[in-house]
Amino acid sequence: MNTATLYRQYIACLNARDLDRLGDFVDEEVDYNGRRIGLSGYRAMLEGNYRDIPDLRFSIQLMVTDATSVAARLNFDCTPTGRFLDLDIGGRRVSFSENVFYQYVDGRIRSVWSVIDKAAIEAQL
Amino acid sequence: MNTATLYRQYIACLNARDLDRLGDFVDEEVDYNGRRIGLSGYRAMLEGNYRDIPDLRFSIQLMVTDATSVAARLNFDCTPTGRFLDLDIGGRRVSFSENVFYQYVDGRIRSVWSVIDKAAIEAQL
Repeated sequence: MNTATLYRQYIACLNARDLDRLGDFVDEEVDYNGRRIGLSGYRAMLEGNYRDIPDLRFSIQLMVTDATSVAARLNFDCTPTGRFLDLDIGGRRVSFSENVFYQYVDGRIRSVWSVIDKAAIEAQL
Repeated sequence: MNTATLYRQYIACLNARDLDRLGDFVDEEVDYNGRRIGLSGYRAMLEGNYRDIPDLRFSIQLMVTDATSVAARLNFDCTPTGRFLDLDIGGRRVSFSENVFYQYVDGRIRSVWSVIDKAAIEAQL
């Protein structure tokens, strides 16, 4: 299966919050922004996101892929309940993007390099 | 010429600060984060970057390309002289990344979607 298809399935899994299937898409030894967090850390990160942002939904604006990589621009339109990225959101609805790179090994995400557009959120507060 | 080669030439142009050649790589009608700034606005933005960050240098960490798109993770290790991204850098040397998507039309960049890792800079202040 190509990386574009695998990635769309991964995003569908996140939006279904079906984290028991996360290991189908994410490697046991995954790194996130240069730090080894592993599949269990990745799952814990997502569980925290779902808890902090009850209406979180991942939407793909742009995707560029090759045999072993995916780059995606994801859009979010959501309502964090408390602090987010060290900002006091105060229950506001905010729109922002994440530009993120994934490197695949044997069909699973081994490494992620993510940047979230914090300045865009600040401009809405 | 493929987008990967075009993009490497564009980055070399930026690092040479050879902005008279910018139009070889960037379309007259270029959009930046959803706003039409045009080639003249793009050039003005870069001139501002060079002025505010005298030791600015663009370094490609990751690149994913297809026939009409480039996604790049760029690394910076530089010393803004004043404020940058609305932060008081105070002459410190900072390291940060930019995850950025480019859409090409007829061999030139027509649209850019950029996110700079502001949180990484804040963590260094």
